[in-house]
Amino acid sequence: MGLIEQLAAIVGAGNVLTAADDMAPHLVDWRRRYHGAARCVVRPASTEEVSAVVRICAQAGVAMVPQGGNTSHCGASIPDLSGEAVLISLSRLNKIRALDVANNTITVDAGCVLQTIQDAAFEAGRLFPLSLAAEGSCQIGGNLSTNAGGVQVLRYGNTRELTLGLEVVLPSGDVWTGLRGLRKDNTGYDLKQLFIGAEGTLGIITAAVMKLFPLPQATATAWLAIQSPQVAVDLLGHMQAAFGATLTACELVSDISLGMVLKHIHGAQAPLASSPWYLLVELSGASEEGAMHIALESFLEESLENASITDAVLAQSVEQARRLWALRENISEAQKVEGFSIKHDISVPVSRIGEFVERADAALLQAFPGIRIVTFGHVGDGNLHYNQSKPASGENAVFIDSQARVNELVHDIVHSLGGSISAEHGIGQLKRDELLRYKSALEMDMMRTVKRAFDPLGLMNPGKVL
Amino acid sequence: MGLIEQLAAIVGAGNVLTAADDMAPHLVDWRRRYHGAARCVVRPASTEEVSAVVRICAQAGVAMVPQGGNTSHCGASIPDLSGEAVLISLSRLNKIRALDVANNTITVDAGCVLQTIQDAAFEAGRLFPLSLAAEGSCQIGGNLSTNAGGVQVLRYGNTRELTLGLEVVLPSGDVWTGLRGLRKDNTGYDLKQLFIGAEGTLGIITAAVMKLFPLPQATATAWLAIQSPQVAVDLLGHMQAAFGATLTACELVSDISLGMVLKHIHGAQAPLASSPWYLLVELSGASEEGAMHIALESFLEESLENASITDAVLAQSVEQARRLWALRENISEAQKVEGFSIKHDISVPVSRIGEFVERADAALLQAFPGIRIVTFGHVGDGNLHYNQSKPASGENAVFIDSQARVNELVHDIVHSLGGSISAEHGIGQLKRDELLRYKSALEMDMMRTVKRAFDPLGLMNPGKVL
Repeated sequence: MGLIEQLAAIVGAGNVLTAADDMAPHLVDWRRRYHGAARCVVRPASTEEVSAVVRICAQAGVAMVPQGGNTSHCGASIPDLSGEAVLISLSRLNKIRALDVANNTITVDAGCVLQTIQDAAFEAGRLFPLSLAAEGSCQIGGNLSTNAGGVQVLRYGNTRELTLGLEVVLPSGDVWTGLRGLRKDNTGYDLKQLFIGAEGTLGIITAAVMKLFPLPQATATAWLAIQSPQVAVDLLGHMQAAFGATLTACELVSDISLGMVLKHIHGAQAPLASSPWYLLVELSGASEEGAMHIALESFLEESLENASITDAVLAQSVEQARRLWALRENISEAQKVEGFSIKHDISVPVSRIGEFVERADAALLQAFPGIRIVTFGHVGDGNLHYNQSKPASGENAVFIDSQARVNELVHDIVHSLGGSISAEHGIGQLKRDELLRYKSALEMDMMRTVKRAFDPLGLMNPGKVL
Repeated sequence: MGLIEQLAAIVGAGNVLTAADDMAPHLVDWRRRYHGAARCVVRPASTEEVSAVVRICAQAGVAMVPQGGNTSHCGASIPDLSGEAVLISLSRLNKIRALDVANNTITVDAGCVLQTIQDAAFEAGRLFPLSLAAEGSCQIGGNLSTNAGGVQVLRYGNTRELTLGLEVVLPSGDVWTGLRGLRKDNTGYDLKQLFIGAEGTLGIITAAVMKLFPLPQATATAWLAIQSPQVAVDLLGHMQAAFGATLTACELVSDISLGMVLKHIHGAQAPLASSPWYLLVELSGASEEGAMHIALESFLEESLENASITDAVLAQSVEQARRLWALRENISEAQKVEGFSIKHDISVPVSRIGEFVERADAALLQAFPGIRIVTFGHVGDGNLHYNQSKPASGENAVFIDSQARVNELVHDIVHSLGGSISAEHGIGQLKRDELLRYKSALEMDMMRTVKRAFDPLGLMNPGKVL
């Protein structure tokens, strides 16, 4: 019996896709930068089926590429062009297995769409705080495999911090059942940490126990005009002191970023007169709605008086808050209309944000006169989306050719500030070569040691990360 | 040149202890349960010296036992009796390397005493929230190696969640410099996670970047009388909804526990009339002091009205709050006076706390009539210190002989509820054999795979954890 027949015997013939048309959506990423090929796409429906599929592939020495919602920014779930790999889609593992309100946990299959988990938590009167642009289609298995961040990390942490337990199919096909729902467990090595952020290179996550939180009872949202990123960092410190854990978002937006949104996104309106930079601030938590508004309002008044901000608007309704958020969330969409863009998902210590923007802006503008720098991101996490569009009068083709030089210039500055070239998107195929430039040889060796120990045949998502 | 001379050439002869008297304090744990022997105690003063010491030992095939403040509950930093090992004391690596207020981080040597770090943070207007009974002598390297918990985990997480970066001397002597101070960094495997909680079996942590937080501006502390652990779990849920992240402690205390404190601790006074159980609750955070007191007071009034609590006292001064905390913190000390005790540091899902106490109490009282059960701990973490003292009329020797049976009875129930036999103290030597009973063979294999990959010669703290 050939491999395809063996796989069909496990998952049913209808769940082994081999026709080019059927496989096509799985073989290109959503940004259409990576194209791959595969022997087949297998769609198991349970952990047992994933285990059996992996065992068959391992015995045959065939590479495996796990895929969730296929929303990677870095081509992590697209196979290479050899056509040798079996693509394993987790989409049919899509059940909420359990929700324990008193333990504040939810146990989910890896193929659950993020929004489905948010909704299930909400219905139980709980918050699942992981929130990001792709939440309507990305799957929790992918979120776990890239240690996804998003807009609420400041308060609730990355996906890693939200995870209490995992179930993983190892490269041998064995199933590790680490689905514990414990806040404290110091019984040896914390093995789940290995698989979180490993981008499917050490095994296939099939289920997870995730933390839930009380639903916030009140929210207050404001849009502030400020003069520089350094002011944003200073304000962040003051707000953390004043509001503690109720400060749940602190998003920086440059005027160029806002300008693109106002130009290209239907219905977008400037909340304030033009300013070099803006800060979108959100408080949420257990306090009473009116009290929270008054507290934020009085903070804004003080900040106006001491001139740390030049203007501000406090949302007076849920609809107004939604519109402010839309200005932030539509930046990528608006930038797309301006043609090819070069994106950087960087982080630096929060204290170095001002210095980073100053140095990187100056270096880019000197090397590429007229380049348009679209800066926005999560100040509280030291994480900026630092993207470039071609000069308004420039050619796309010329700009595309400069990508490697732009990357090196930006990432060298990030590195010199003790920063990271991938804050939340991971490595995938996109940054595999760049990683070698910025990680020490020793650290790369340590990573290869882990890879060899858990996947000695090198069959799990080859060509990604390492 | 012999090993001792080689080590002396690195750290100076005065920092290689070989006389029995000099080594003695390093060769017994603070509970005096584990006695060990060593070739020598080496006291390096820098990462470079640790690296050179490890390289020499590795080349000579000599086992190494790292030791911080020597406050382990599980004998993790005491060598075996063979006398073959070199004990490496980290105490001279005791500098605060950096404090970045705007980044909310502190970079510390592994040998810094926990309280020293708390104090340095406080002087900079920041909170380092890790707090536990041994804080005046335990060292951060030990806290990291056991992933220490403590009383503020509910709000701030375990040591693991407080760690952003590590510097580690690997078993080869190579130094891995992972001292990043980033909130987000998804560039490959998160290697620091391997060393946190590994109890020195994979390498020696020499420095760390730890998270800081704003200092709380207000605190409110109360002592509640309740009828059962299940009521504590229900109240926890209500308080999380009402107070969000300002609920920073929620400690359960049984009447037997309190009774021992009142009997043996000088000056201890009962805050309320006797009740089967008590809950020590603390709010702290950015809110205004008066408002926080009013909020807690009105919650207590409601709880009295709906009879979920039977009585309560709200601390009216810092001194009164300190006294309430002393009742909780002196339980271990008081229990010691009652003779030999059998201790369990267990966790279960928060939702199963009531069931655990009911089942374990019933089983113990049936098997060991008259046994006194001293239950207290961190309800919000599902972590109970579930300790037994001999029957008031019983013999110490008889009780000591029953230890293995008591452990098995308690830990079997913990295991059946999806819990952990070591919530915050680690495995060390104490629970190494028990671990085999409760971890799957596959999970033990995965742990051994990690150990072999990073310490192929098995020289790092042998006989601990695995």
